[in-house]
Amino acid sequence: MSAAFSPLKNDTFLRALLRQPTDYTPVWLMRQAGRYLPEYRATRQRAGSFLGLAKNPDYATEVTLQPLDRYPLDAAILFSDILTVPDAMGLGLHFADGEGPKFLHPLRDETAIRKLAPPPPGSLQYVFDAVTQIRHELNGRVPLIGFSGSPWTLACYMVEGGGSDDFRLVKGMLYDRPDLMHHLLDVNATAVTDYLNAQIDAGAQAVMLFDTWGGALADGAYQTFSLDYMRRIFAGLKKTKDGVRIPSIVFTKGGGLWLDQIADVGADAVGLDWTVNLRKARALVGDRVALQGNLDPTVLFSNPGSIKAETASVLKSFGESANGGHVFNLGHGISQFTPTESVAVLVDAVHSLSRRGLPASA
Amino acid sequence: MSAAFSPLKNDTFLRALLRQPTDYTPVWLMRQAGRYLPEYRATRQRAGSFLGLAKNPDYATEVTLQPLDRYPLDAAILFSDILTVPDAMGLGLHFADGEGPKFLHPLRDETAIRKLAPPPPGSLQYVFDAVTQIRHELNGRVPLIGFSGSPWTLACYMVEGGGSDDFRLVKGMLYDRPDLMHHLLDVNATAVTDYLNAQIDAGAQAVMLFDTWGGALADGAYQTFSLDYMRRIFAGLKKTKDGVRIPSIVFTKGGGLWLDQIADVGADAVGLDWTVNLRKARALVGDRVALQGNLDPTVLFSNPGSIKAETASVLKSFGESANGGHVFNLGHGISQFTPTESVAVLVDAVHSLSRRGLPASA
Repeated sequence: MSAAFSPLKNDTFLRALLRQPTDYTPVWLMRQAGRYLPEYRATRQRAGSFLGLAKNPDYATEVTLQPLDRYPLDAAILFSDILTVPDAMGLGLHFADGEGPKFLHPLRDETAIRKLAPPPPGSLQYVFDAVTQIRHELNGRVPLIGFSGSPWTLACYMVEGGGSDDFRLVKGMLYDRPDLMHHLLDVNATAVTDYLNAQIDAGAQAVMLFDTWGGALADGAYQTFSLDYMRRIFAGLKKTKDGVRIPSIVFTKGGGLWLDQIADVGADAVGLDWTVNLRKARALVGDRVALQGNLDPTVLFSNPGSIKAETASVLKSFGESANGGHVFNLGHGISQFTPTESVAVLVDAVHSLSRRGLPASA
Repeated sequence: MSAAFSPLKNDTFLRALLRQPTDYTPVWLMRQAGRYLPEYRATRQRAGSFLGLAKNPDYATEVTLQPLDRYPLDAAILFSDILTVPDAMGLGLHFADGEGPKFLHPLRDETAIRKLAPPPPGSLQYVFDAVTQIRHELNGRVPLIGFSGSPWTLACYMVEGGGSDDFRLVKGMLYDRPDLMHHLLDVNATAVTDYLNAQIDAGAQAVMLFDTWGGALADGAYQTFSLDYMRRIFAGLKKTKDGVRIPSIVFTKGGGLWLDQIADVGADAVGLDWTVNLRKARALVGDRVALQGNLDPTVLFSNPGSIKAETASVLKSFGESANGGHVFNLGHGISQFTPTESVAVLVDAVHSLSRRGLPASA
């Protein structure tokens, strides 16, 4: 099927991930296809619900491409949810109005966890269909990123049944019954590896693991219960497709303190949130990985002058990037309240400032 | 008035903060007087509301002492709220049932911020009265800690009007109008300095700044908009009372990446959350400051064996502490859902394991 895909016209993003020379710093935004766009809200209304949107390849394709029609972004990311895998395992993902994701059948005891099985064949076909359809409609404009939640992040939602401000159920289980938690993470890691490889087969040109809640773990627990399972996934990912490298990205929000270890997890690039000093991060990781990030998304609530200045500050902190290695992004998903004009200012600033060239150090 | 205070019988906590020799590692828990204690819930019910409790010195004294009657903790902390100062500035602190703190009059525009004035004389007398009364009733058992929210953390609530999961109003203002944000932080820093000094005059034997939301800031913004204002406060604090040193503690939740800079802010000790590796932290700060922390509070949802093992792990990570320098604590306030028996296991484990002596390195 992929033989029919058009050749890639803009590979800046992929080159930066692989630390190859680029003409400028590529930029995309986590959650770039989302509620801050009026055209997204219109499609969402037609679809009837978030899941109605995410599970329908036509709609998913439409909203994936929307931000690219507005802004000269350097990558597209599959429109989907990080929790598709546990949903396919039968936990019953749903979204109450104005609330985050919830599971109808959270895993609260040993029986439920021991019964957990991989997603049945075909249960995630809608995702792979969307990937292939998006690749066709992208027509080679920019690369398409596939993704999943990390085993630990999936476990957080699977045990808590939704978001949490303290994760006391899932972390309590981790400390009380580490054996059970390891079983759950083992099932998740296998399922996520298969899921990402199927996205690669369907046409994903890069893949990203969102370890959204890794930063909620204690030092020590993070390495054992999140990082080690992500390592297994990166080791099991297809590294090429039709002879082309498929770069991978890992992002542990709040994981800046563990960067040295994360850089060895097996991903090609590490996402960073805005608490991390990019210059120090670059010095620490050396030539091990590329870095992705890390503008504070709230900068987009200021004014064009400040947006440009803060963008310049992030680029300057990373330093000279003619040899690749930096993908510009926010340090977290873009807020639904972001003014669309701010995004235009940001994307233009990244491109124009990085193309001009910046001093190697600030 | 303080001439009438009884001599201190257990100064282990104060000695550890000042990195002087101690017989064991002292322990107290953030939010130790709180909802996980049935006796607290009973007093709270009699008081009618959280603020009815916090603003009445008799009730505040009663609940401050409750955890000390249950557990052999090495410090008491004034029962109060981090938001008393902006409340006294007229913002109208209130607590809706089951929700966090809210302000009736949040600061949303330049006019409101320019009008902000220090708390009127007498408006915080109830706090100072509580401090003195607690000192008398403590009768020298353990030292009493006074505290305040940091200027930035106060600003978060003052602008947002309550908690937030993205702080887009206050951070948007920071990036859009840094001049306004600096004005607000300047007013807060002066008010907090005066407030903590008045607590010291009233009898507080150590003081702590809670920078609960410092970790929400970007690298760079943290230093300018939170750390620099805390530096001003520590420089302005009374260092002794009646010839006795008054140690100070700073705690930026999520601030582990900035530890090297925080260690130079002027506090005697730095609080750490559970994401920080204590051994690395100790090596980094050297003899500049003591460290306080950093057990993950969710460990208390496991079982006695795990609680002891995780406590041992924290002690071992810090290493030999016969020369002081480590105050055991959780990495965040104790959860209201914590079983009271878990706290007994924890406090006993800290004392017995640290008294036995531990290897200098793990």
